[in-house]
Amino acid sequence: MYGPSIDRLITALRVMPGIGAKSAQRIALQLLERNRDGAAELAASLIDAVDKVGNCSSCRTLCEGERCTICSDSRRSAQQLCIVETPADLFAIEQAGGYSGHYFVLMGHLSPIDGIGPEEIGLPILEAKLASGEVDELILATNLTVEGETTAHYISSRARAAGVAVSRIAHGVPLGGELEYIDSNTLSLAMQSRKVI
Amino acid sequence: MYGPSIDRLITALRVMPGIGAKSAQRIALQLLERNRDGAAELAASLIDAVDKVGNCSSCRTLCEGERCTICSDSRRSAQQLCIVETPADLFAIEQAGGYSGHYFVLMGHLSPIDGIGPEEIGLPILEAKLASGEVDELILATNLTVEGETTAHYISSRARAAGVAVSRIAHGVPLGGELEYIDSNTLSLAMQSRKVI
Repeated sequence: MYGPSIDRLITALRVMPGIGAKSAQRIALQLLERNRDGAAELAASLIDAVDKVGNCSSCRTLCEGERCTICSDSRRSAQQLCIVETPADLFAIEQAGGYSGHYFVLMGHLSPIDGIGPEEIGLPILEAKLASGEVDELILATNLTVEGETTAHYISSRARAAGVAVSRIAHGVPLGGELEYIDSNTLSLAMQSRKVI
Repeated sequence: MYGPSIDRLITALRVMPGIGAKSAQRIALQLLERNRDGAAELAASLIDAVDKVGNCSSCRTLCEGERCTICSDSRRSAQQLCIVETPADLFAIEQAGGYSGHYFVLMGHLSPIDGIGPEEIGLPILEAKLASGEVDELILATNLTVEGETTAHYISSRARAAGVAVSRIAHGVPLGGELEYIDSNTLSLAMQSRKVI
């Protein structure tokens, strides 16, 4: 409708999550009207990132180079291994601070209906790590969704078979959460998971 | 935080209107995790569009080539000239159908506080068009905002000085609008602008 190059750009912009037809059109026109330098820099940085960013050979997170900064950091302990679904989850835990072990990033979760089995989420690599004997504790930090729970359950059974201790991060009422405004599923989970003090 | 290439991509993504820090991070990670072909195509189409898309020499809208398809269409009348603020406004009127004249795209509106005067919105080109005598009627379709109204007022005074008839698109209750849900400014405008039937 706007000519071949603009139409192609509008279509290409829709690969981004959360960007629909109207937003893509608005972004394309605004970049071309007002910020061509920004558009050129965006193109260059996309090419650069696609070219340079790969996966860490040890933990599978997105990184530039063979191993990520966490896996290459000799001050961090390889005895603790925290399992997360995505690089964003890894960085959320890093930002919270306090954890000084290694990570393993699944890049997804088990979902047989979408054809995602143990191979696709890198479990053979994880099992090799567990068999090597360097891991003492596996901390499961997958999401509290049906798929995340299934994945956690599957991994914990494999870890126990390999003789590695397994834990799951705590779920319940968040800090500063007022009971009045917490959803009832979280609240009933918090009641069930109550701890003796 | 994620390494230089990913950080650069996250920063570059923020040139897009409506994309903040969190969305940029989510988009960058998701493209790199799941859709590298889409990211490469986005980069290529940005470069292509920045390279090929310019402004129509006659109406200033975004187009590929010297003159846009509307200005080059001999079936359209150059006697009517519709003034809009942006290419998106032009395409909205085209999609509505029924108008077969030419357009003039201001690429903004008068806004002295931002340093946008008559020069910046192409009024010298418009005045040359009006002076040439080929335009019979000027239709003002700028937005109904303070800046849009000011721009419309300024242009209408210049058009009258050049002896060209000026009209403004109608404003009031939209089709299918229920009075109960229309904002009171629109409603009071619709009352003031009532027509004898």
